[in-house]
Amino acid sequence: MTITHHLDRSTVHREWNNALPPRLTIDPGDTVIFDTRDAADGYYAPSSTHADVLARGPFRGHPLTGPVSIKGARRGDVLTIEILDVKPAAAFGWTAIRPGRGLLPEADFSKPHLTIWDLSNGTHARMGRNIAVPIAPFPGVMGVALDEPGSHSTMPPRKNGGNMDVKQLTAGTTLFLPAWVDGALFSVGDAHAAQGDGEVCVTAVEMMGQVTLRFGLASGREQKEPQFRTRGPLASATERGPCFATTAHGPDLFASAQQAIRYMIDHLATERGLSREEAYILCSVAVDLKISEIVDAPNWIVSAFLPESIFT
Amino acid sequence: MTITHHLDRSTVHREWNNALPPRLTIDPGDTVIFDTRDAADGYYAPSSTHADVLARGPFRGHPLTGPVSIKGARRGDVLTIEILDVKPAAAFGWTAIRPGRGLLPEADFSKPHLTIWDLSNGTHARMGRNIAVPIAPFPGVMGVALDEPGSHSTMPPRKNGGNMDVKQLTAGTTLFLPAWVDGALFSVGDAHAAQGDGEVCVTAVEMMGQVTLRFGLASGREQKEPQFRTRGPLASATERGPCFATTAHGPDLFASAQQAIRYMIDHLATERGLSREEAYILCSVAVDLKISEIVDAPNWIVSAFLPESIFT
Repeated sequence: MTITHHLDRSTVHREWNNALPPRLTIDPGDTVIFDTRDAADGYYAPSSTHADVLARGPFRGHPLTGPVSIKGARRGDVLTIEILDVKPAAAFGWTAIRPGRGLLPEADFSKPHLTIWDLSNGTHARMGRNIAVPIAPFPGVMGVALDEPGSHSTMPPRKNGGNMDVKQLTAGTTLFLPAWVDGALFSVGDAHAAQGDGEVCVTAVEMMGQVTLRFGLASGREQKEPQFRTRGPLASATERGPCFATTAHGPDLFASAQQAIRYMIDHLATERGLSREEAYILCSVAVDLKISEIVDAPNWIVSAFLPESIFT
Repeated sequence: MTITHHLDRSTVHREWNNALPPRLTIDPGDTVIFDTRDAADGYYAPSSTHADVLARGPFRGHPLTGPVSIKGARRGDVLTIEILDVKPAAAFGWTAIRPGRGLLPEADFSKPHLTIWDLSNGTHARMGRNIAVPIAPFPGVMGVALDEPGSHSTMPPRKNGGNMDVKQLTAGTTLFLPAWVDGALFSVGDAHAAQGDGEVCVTAVEMMGQVTLRFGLASGREQKEPQFRTRGPLASATERGPCFATTAHGPDLFASAQQAIRYMIDHLATERGLSREEAYILCSVAVDLKISEIVDAPNWIVSAFLPESIFT
């Protein structure tokens, strides 16, 4: 018998803490529909402005729906989490530049910026008239409780998954997530309508979401960090036409990623007429960072790929 | 009138040096067919063994076909290089592990290893009976002379392109390469039949090749490093089925790339029965490194993607 549970978004937690009591206890094989809040907890509206980014105050942790205890899960087991469905639960999404956060520092972007995306057609996130990024929704945060006691920030990803922001964790992918405590204590949140590999400005197309997951257990599988298997080819939504790519070389991958994104921002400003803020936001939402080579010492190459099919 | 030139592989150079005389001078709009030697200068044969890797002695620089001087090219111009065709010029390719080189150090791989790939069917590089990597040939090295005088190693990529090892530079892609000296002095070599983003063991499926390029000139385009535009979707050959992916998190992208590849080698050994050397070589040839997120301080995530359609 297939059992489907439902957790609404009325209650959230904002930390990883293995002392949190489960909101729900399920059997392996069960499915759970999670209603998730967006990363800013519903703060933004379609009418929000750039000034609202700072007015919001400091980040207090991702609001997460959970935890769910999985019966029989023991430390050392691996959860197999089938991502059955991820969908927007609002007709808009948002992307914010917050000075001091993100890949490019304040010297590049000193002012806050907010873009509201129209998600109402169900297939694309639209910015203005000419940019439509295909929706490929996934939860930015999927994680389990850590084995260390106490409260842990939701910001960095860790061995428990968490704020992974891995854009391939879309419907059809199966996530393999090691359990660190009995019951695992799984939570989810921070759904994104679209994101590039890198999420360079620190936000994607952030949205209220609904995430449907089926949980299984694999014992005796040695695994120290999250792994996953996709159902089919990657990025099929954006892999429809030419890509424009910038490259940057050097001994430091982080600096090269910064430089490749700076070149892409220059390109988007010069060739596509975007403001630098719009360009940075588009990089975060639609540009993929690849490590092209990491062996031709002393210079590695990081490349940034822009799918040009997003321009309509 | 379209003019097509041909440069054979009888003569090569093994350094970047703006004092090298051009083998050929062409007009913008001309096409050149380059016969290229493989990175080991024809040293390996289908009968070669692991011992041959060290017997070969130290690397003396990539053998490059060129230079070609492009009339009218001035420092500050950008060459537009249309990659019209890249094909194998031999029925086999090779991949070598050389201790002390590559992403994983001697502690992981202390012995040399050589894999000979069968390229004879023209569409796939075959390793044994069960692995067939689709051929997506590209030149590992495309570059122009530097503005600094003297001899410069071909190993690291630089602002002049060079040993970029960017796997998306396949037929159909247009490379935009800044010129640093008058005439540009372009050379090409080091063709690869297939490679993963990262080229982690330091060699791809190395091969003798034939590369056909059409040269153009763009003036007044500010560009400091190579950029390019693909003709269509990326990696269409391998994007045919599920991918298995490992992730590694941490504050250092290089260390996370190493760890993600170690996990992938474990996976290939455990789940697919490969030796660790075969697994490392397969990672270099077919696994793509992505920067999944680079903003969730202090932990970035590097992911390694294996297209499972290569297993037959």
